Amino acid sequence: MALGWFYLSCLVLGSLGSMCILFTTYWMQYWRGGFAWDGSVHMFNWHPVLMVSAMVVIYGAASLVYRLPASWVGPKLPWKLLHAALHLMAFIFTVVGLVAVFQFHSHSKIAHLYSLHSWLGITTVILFSCQWFLGFAVFLLPWASLWLRSLLKPMHVFFGASILSLSIASVISGINEKLFFVLKNATKPYSSLPSEAVFANSTGLLVVTFGLLVLYVLLASSWRRPEPGTLIDRELLLQLWPGTRPFPVTYVPVTQAAM
Amino acid sequence: MALGWFYLSCLVLGSLGSMCILFTTYWMQYWRGGFAWDGSVHMFNWHPVLMVSAMVVIYGAASLVYRLPASWVGPKLPWKLLHAALHLMAFIFTVVGLVAVFQFHSHSKIAHLYSLHSWLGITTVILFSCQWFLGFAVFLLPWASLWLRSLLKPMHVFFGASILSLSIASVISGINEKLFFVLKNATKPYSSLPSEAVFANSTGLLVVTFGLLVLYVLLASSWRRPEPGTLIDRELLLQLWPGTRPFPVTYVPVTQAAM
Repeated sequence: MALGWFYLSCLVLGSLGSMCILFTTYWMQYWRGGFAWDGSVHMFNWHPVLMVSAMVVIYGAASLVYRLPASWVGPKLPWKLLHAALHLMAFIFTVVGLVAVFQFHSHSKIAHLYSLHSWLGITTVILFSCQWFLGFAVFLLPWASLWLRSLLKPMHVFFGASILSLSIASVISGINEKLFFVLKNATKPYSSLPSEAVFANSTGLLVVTFGLLVLYVLLASSWRRPEPGTLIDRELLLQLWPGTRPFPVTYVPVTQAAM
Repeated sequence: MALGWFYLSCLVLGSLGSMCILFTTYWMQYWRGGFAWDGSVHMFNWHPVLMVSAMVVIYGAASLVYRLPASWVGPKLPWKLLHAALHLMAFIFTVVGLVAVFQFHSHSKIAHLYSLHSWLGITTVILFSCQWFLGFAVFLLPWASLWLRSLLKPMHVFFGASILSLSIASVISGINEKLFFVLKNATKPYSSLPSEAVFANSTGLLVVTFGLLVLYVLLASSWRRPEPGTLIDRELLLQLWPGTRPFPVTYVPVTQAAM
């Protein structure tokens, strides 16, 4: 691993994640009248800020805990606790973000959960809660066997990445829906791309870029804690006869066919 | 690999993919007045059908070519050709789907490319075209070295999966946007969940389910062609001294730490 690349990626991810939160907050503050907790549309304004912060940025950071080189050696438990705690924080922010939109709907006599955005969003939050409780029960509590953990780990990673992808799809459809709701002014409709539309569309693409970078580091990069049962790359413990002391050997892969 | 599971997955994926196309077509035919190629809203109706068919279903099928057990042995070139041809077919359908919406907009004096749905959608199509041409140049044409292919392959797989995820986000925001456009009737608005809304929302969730299953088989399952340089699982060619004949040995991983 080139350590320079790693720290550059941390800087890029940190900056992009902060920008996602700041841009969403600025959109709500500057164009949508700011924040309140009174059932009005200003209470709704917490919804996009909290969902982007929780389900994209904090969730993304929590997913990447095991990609930090400091987590690759020594006991895994403190890192598991950090992973679970950050995801729990994301979940709590998510619940507050949902309360904001449900109370706004109730206060304004708007139906709950009718749009595809809301169907997908609530499905994503339900999947997230299942994933958290299953992760807590299997990987944090001590009862599960190594066999069960090994069996479930690839699924845990896959569903973790899937939930982030679904969050991004929910955010995109949510920003799109909000802009169609509010930019109805006949002289400056959404279709004339006023400054708010350009800003909010760009915020959507920023969220997509951040999410894809998180997924790249999570799924495709080589920055990860070595799995139990492996030595360093291309090294094996060789035991020539039962009872003799095993010793490490390196091996060279044999090319079988062209790619 | 349990062959039964594999064929069951093929059946589920084939059924879900067909349902995605059939449901979108039925939505456009039954509730939106059917299809034409005359610049009217009936021409627009080709857009959702072609985008779901091309960027989700055919694209998904094309991505999974190397997961078919028949592709794991023998020459790789025929499978590469099939992979490239199916993706090219998806790309051509995508272009026709874009022509449908652009001509409808021009005919009806509607601005092009203003919504976040359109920004994300066009970004996805541009990324797809770059991915296809880069894949064609590096993996199909014979000039690229094995080193370059090995270097780019994980990125090719990651961007392939990312483009499918972005397609799904585009489809979700597109269905959501269309329903807000058309379900404005005061007695039966979108918020009262008329049958069209329930049907189209369900179609959106069907597309998400299909996409996640494709991504699972692509990224997380063990169904894949063995990489060059590997023998069967946990088998190595051992050469004890230079010049001697190498022989295959199996090895047992050594557990270093609990997961």
